[in-house]
Amino acid sequence: MLLRLRRNLAEDERATFLALAAELGYAVRFVEGEPELARLEGPGRPEHRSRLEDCHAVVGVLDGGQAHELHQRAPGAPDRVVRVGEGAFGGGSVSLIAGPCAVEDAERTLQIAREVRARGATVLRGGAFKPRSSPYSFQGSGRAGLEVLARVRREARIAVVTEALDPREVEAVGEVADMFQVGSRNMANQPLLRELGLQRKPVLLKRGFAATLREFLLAAEFVLAGGNEDVVLCERGIRSFDPSTRNVLDVGGVAWLKLHTHLPVIVDPSHAAGHADLVRALARAGLAAGADGLICEVHPSPSEVHSDGEQAIGLEDFSAVAADARALAALDGRTVVQPAREDAREPERVPARPVG
Amino acid sequence: MLLRLRRNLAEDERATFLALAAELGYAVRFVEGEPELARLEGPGRPEHRSRLEDCHAVVGVLDGGQAHELHQRAPGAPDRVVRVGEGAFGGGSVSLIAGPCAVEDAERTLQIAREVRARGATVLRGGAFKPRSSPYSFQGSGRAGLEVLARVRREARIAVVTEALDPREVEAVGEVADMFQVGSRNMANQPLLRELGLQRKPVLLKRGFAATLREFLLAAEFVLAGGNEDVVLCERGIRSFDPSTRNVLDVGGVAWLKLHTHLPVIVDPSHAAGHADLVRALARAGLAAGADGLICEVHPSPSEVHSDGEQAIGLEDFSAVAADARALAALDGRTVVQPAREDAREPERVPARPVG
Amino acid sequence: MLLRLRRNLAEDERATFLALAAELGYAVRFVEGEPELARLEGPGRPEHRSRLEDCHAVVGVLDGGQAHELHQRAPGAPDRVVRVGEGAFGGGSVSLIAGPCAVEDAERTLQIAREVRARGATVLRGGAFKPRSSPYSFQGSGRAGLEVLARVRREARIAVVTEALDPREVEAVGEVADMFQVGSRNMANQPLLRELGLQRKPVLLKRGFAATLREFLLAAEFVLAGGNEDVVLCERGIRSFDPSTRNVLDVGGVAWLKLHTHLPVIVDPSHAAGHADLVRALARAGLAAGADGLICEVHPSPSEVHSDGEQAIGLEDFSAVAADARALAALDGRTVVQPAREDAREPERVPARPVG
Amino acid sequence: MLLRLRRNLAEDERATFLALAAELGYAVRFVEGEPELARLEGPGRPEHRSRLEDCHAVVGVLDGGQAHELHQRAPGAPDRVVRVGEGAFGGGSVSLIAGPCAVEDAERTLQIAREVRARGATVLRGGAFKPRSSPYSFQGSGRAGLEVLARVRREARIAVVTEALDPREVEAVGEVADMFQVGSRNMANQPLLRELGLQRKPVLLKRGFAATLREFLLAAEFVLAGGNEDVVLCERGIRSFDPSTRNVLDVGGVAWLKLHTHLPVIVDPSHAAGHADLVRALARAGLAAGADGLICEVHPSPSEVHSDGEQAIGLEDFSAVAADARALAALDGRTVVQPAREDAREPERVPARPVG
Repeated sequence: MLLRLRRNLAEDERATFLALAAELGYAVRFVEGEPELARLEGPGRPEHRSRLEDCHAVVGVLDGGQAHELHQRAPGAPDRVVRVGEGAFGGGSVSLIAGPCAVEDAERTLQIAREVRARGATVLRGGAFKPRSSPYSFQGSGRAGLEVLARVRREARIAVVTEALDPREVEAVGEVADMFQVGSRNMANQPLLRELGLQRKPVLLKRGFAATLREFLLAAEFVLAGGNEDVVLCERGIRSFDPSTRNVLDVGGVAWLKLHTHLPVIVDPSHAAGHADLVRALARAGLAAGADGLICEVHPSPSEVHSDGEQAIGLEDFSAVAADARALAALDGRTVVQPAREDAREPERVPARPVG
Repeated sequence: MLLRLRRNLAEDERATFLALAAELGYAVRFVEGEPELARLEGPGRPEHRSRLEDCHAVVGVLDGGQAHELHQRAPGAPDRVVRVGEGAFGGGSVSLIAGPCAVEDAERTLQIAREVRARGATVLRGGAFKPRSSPYSFQGSGRAGLEVLARVRREARIAVVTEALDPREVEAVGEVADMFQVGSRNMANQPLLRELGLQRKPVLLKRGFAATLREFLLAAEFVLAGGNEDVVLCERGIRSFDPSTRNVLDVGGVAWLKLHTHLPVIVDPSHAAGHADLVRALARAGLAAGADGLICEVHPSPSEVHSDGEQAIGLEDFSAVAADARALAALDGRTVVQPAREDAREPERVPARPVG
Repeated sequence: MLLRLRRNLAEDERATFLALAAELGYAVRFVEGEPELARLEGPGRPEHRSRLEDCHAVVGVLDGGQAHELHQRAPGAPDRVVRVGEGAFGGGSVSLIAGPCAVEDAERTLQIAREVRARGATVLRGGAFKPRSSPYSFQGSGRAGLEVLARVRREARIAVVTEALDPREVEAVGEVADMFQVGSRNMANQPLLRELGLQRKPVLLKRGFAATLREFLLAAEFVLAGGNEDVVLCERGIRSFDPSTRNVLDVGGVAWLKLHTHLPVIVDPSHAAGHADLVRALARAGLAAGADGLICEVHPSPSEVHSDGEQAIGLEDFSAVAADARALAALDGRTVVQPAREDAREPERVPARPVG
Repeated sequence: MLLRLRRNLAEDERATFLALAAELGYAVRFVEGEPELARLEGPGRPEHRSRLEDCHAVVGVLDGGQAHELHQRAPGAPDRVVRVGEGAFGGGSVSLIAGPCAVEDAERTLQIAREVRARGATVLRGGAFKPRSSPYSFQGSGRAGLEVLARVRREARIAVVTEALDPREVEAVGEVADMFQVGSRNMANQPLLRELGLQRKPVLLKRGFAATLREFLLAAEFVLAGGNEDVVLCERGIRSFDPSTRNVLDVGGVAWLKLHTHLPVIVDPSHAAGHADLVRALARAGLAAGADGLICEVHPSPSEVHSDGEQAIGLEDFSAVAADARALAALDGRTVVQPAREDAREPERVPARPVG
């Protein structure tokens, strides 16, 4: 690693820095004629970079060298492929997640699940626990919603992803879900991320609406560092100064992520748009920028939705989105994973592998 | 309430809206000649506004009328004064919170506590649980840190505020702290906010770095709605496009909050600045804009700090900040609460009042 | 128009409002039971909305009714098709603009023009006057650059677009260019926009990097209001908090613009990306979101570029971008306009039509 | 200068870099063992840094060494004091600029000028040319407004600052104004800045609403580089995601600027706030952060204002702002410059010094 140090280090600052480097196992060489530059040779473990950056003597890391974090794509390394039920994300596989914002009653949710599966979704989305801005807004149906999801999963033979808000709910959510969702508001909720790092189920991690791409990757690192390798990143729009659209879908961020991490990246065109009439365009843009999938709010009757109904698209529009996805994936030699038609059965339970 | 409805409502959308209004106890009058406007007369409870806004037929609330949320300042209503140990925030009282970013060993922390108290701080800050961007960075000393705080609190006779990150830690933190801190990353962590709403201890709620003022107040509302009336809001800088300073202290937001809520508002000049040499100017700006106090990172030897050392100020600088605070408060006829000098004793324990 | 008025209007404020409405030719009806709402019936000319919004008594326009601005897409109205040399933007036609950041010497520029034309560009870009952040950076070759463009235009038989920075240069630029470019820094340079409104040549208007979509459309309105109907809007990325990419390409903004205006919209993936390795992904995303064309920085040897070389792509990459464009356009039944191959001749001069 | 170069430079890239360095008069030494670092010894002129940064081989300047730009504060150097009529900005002098958004009729403007002067303003603000978002909004009274200003200046014996929008208007504006204003929309209008660099009258340069502090200083550098040393920087709020206030006053930016440049810095609390009831708090915050003055929109009857009336404060409020300014300045040993009371006479004409 090549580090930049503060100018005119005091003797004690310099000593503190040298002691830390030695403790971590590095040899320090000051660059000749440049007292503010130090070259460190040693183990290069991912955690060392952060430890050194925390040191007061260090202005920053100019060159990280071989030290790399778990999310980083090594040169030439292939994509991590994350499998969820019939779906697969990454490595040329594109999958579609669709469903209502919040879980509704069992009949309705079952109907939606069958409809979106018939149109190409391999994973059903639906919130049981909903984070809302106001304590007085509808907060989801909670445990009852999880039971609905369990039944729908079984009967419609579709994998489900649903949000965990609270580390105390992770176990209950994990009994039903094939994939945990971490919402935008909770991207930096580290107790929750650590808890999910101990699970052996994929995690759909949404980018905080004002998180840098570096912070997003470090949030994923909290999960990876716990031993859970199956993180799917989701770009869902960042906050801007313009009220015309709810958020700004950062398609450049999608492309940047695909270069810098081996983890799959999907987009959420619904939250980015905030209006149904922009969803299809954003879904296309995200896939064209290289996304490995989509998560869409879909509802047979958007006008009856309890929360965020303005951004849900109807079933026909979802068919169009799915057709776009197939066409766009084909341009790159990628494939949209289709749900099985004939012998569909309940998604296999992922056994809870022992930790460590 | 005056509501704006969607154009050309379908019959079922209109019916759904009317049913909801009736369920909540409102009479609906459509404004003559304006089919998109509806006037509702009824109970006007705070939760109704959010319920109506969630309804697909409703574009927005044009005039909230008498319905108000708990954080709202009624016309002419006085400030809520929140007391923490010797400190008091609001109603003309300004208090200073100071201390290290993270709790250090007991001797060091005790020394800092005595030093900042002697210079005018009535509350000690210090993190035991630290949220950091990387899983490999120093994460605080955890429970051991809480023990240090308990000892320092007793021996230095100063109230302490420390962060709770995880709803499962709230009880342990509450056994030591006189005030809970909710950090910027957790402003929208609703399980945590709800847990704190059940406590009978003040909460220092930091604004999310990209939260609107409305979202900030609704986060406070999660605590207030639980029955805990003692929330102190803290503006700590918002994220911008400019890397020169770490964040942008939203002094206009401080002034706006003082007009719209009766809750006290303080500023954190340290996180806003990100550099020690800007802290004093930001502390002054915040107080001049009407803040009811400050929370500052102070360390006798900033160069030895484990995390965020760049923004900690030394003891002499803190003396200058405290002197500024006294001068600025006096301009408005406000007072900086001074720690007792003679018969100082351990801050009285706030008894855990029964909930409800 | 339905206007919202201030609460408790003073008598003189009310009188001023009524006088203005009368002067503009409107009948005012106050909505029964709602003293803060006024319905105006009258001519509904585009300039009236702004005049009324400027009135102190008026909080805002709730419903603009028939009053519309020149950029607005009337329901069901077709795209405005803007033709530049062989290129056409809008109405199902997609065109590619390519070339160097700044005009170079004549031989080099001629070579680039021929290369990009052979690969599918119908318009050559190249700056003679360059707005740079520092007064000491390379500012372009000025009038000499215009002469190079004139020669290249003639010999390579390709239309050219180049930036005008200063209203005093508009005439000289217009003698050479087939299309005027207004850069992001000058989106709100109203003397320049007014001057271009008097020209009878297309204008490529880039969005300011922190302009709202409404402000962007109003900047176009300055040109349209002068009588020049040929404005092509260009989304080139907005500023955000994340340093990973230079800007954030607002693909949702592209889709929103296509709904709200009949003017063509293109994207500039080069300035949005800031790095050559992201340009292709952004070009694809922009077209997939509905853009009517691209403007790309292309250079046979990006490493030799004077300014912004990091974002220029090479010729082979441009071939790939052009192939992507054809494939994406075909998905929608749109066509990428190809330069003529055989009988190519100098683009016809657009005669300077008399104003008015 | 210490430069960071690209990894694995091609031979021609390296040659281009070495040729440029030689041309500028620098000796290049590659840092031993670090092929990506180059130390340049040589003239260190301000323009060289930008030239080198433009070179493709160069990633960035790690250490600018002695090369400095004209706006930079040399270590320990005093403030530049800019004098405008009776006012003085910088070096411990604080001055107040006040007046209407736009020039009104002569009688009204004269009355306002006398009122604000009597309350402590040494400079009158008032726009003759107004940049507005819509072409249909009131655009100011133009040349007639300049004539009003000339008369008011003479009769009220107060210096005036007014905006120049167009390089072609600079001469006409300069015949009346004691100080040129460059508005936020025109901060990067380089032809205008260059034109003002040739004048020998102070320039009030407003920060673009999404300009970084570095870009702001470089905009000032365009004026300074032309030989005009009298630039007053004005922070007027930056754009954010929060609609509660019109802009966010960047008080940290004010403090940062005072450290990094010797130029005076003032704040515009009116445009930052967007609402009259926040102006006083922002004026105080700006001065407390170190600003050398204020520019305020003041009007005896804010409800009658043509544009931006919502943010104008009345005369009594301005008296309160002026009293605050005196109190805050006194805390630092600074002085608010007061207009002469007795023998007031027309401000002396600054003679047009020959350029160069």
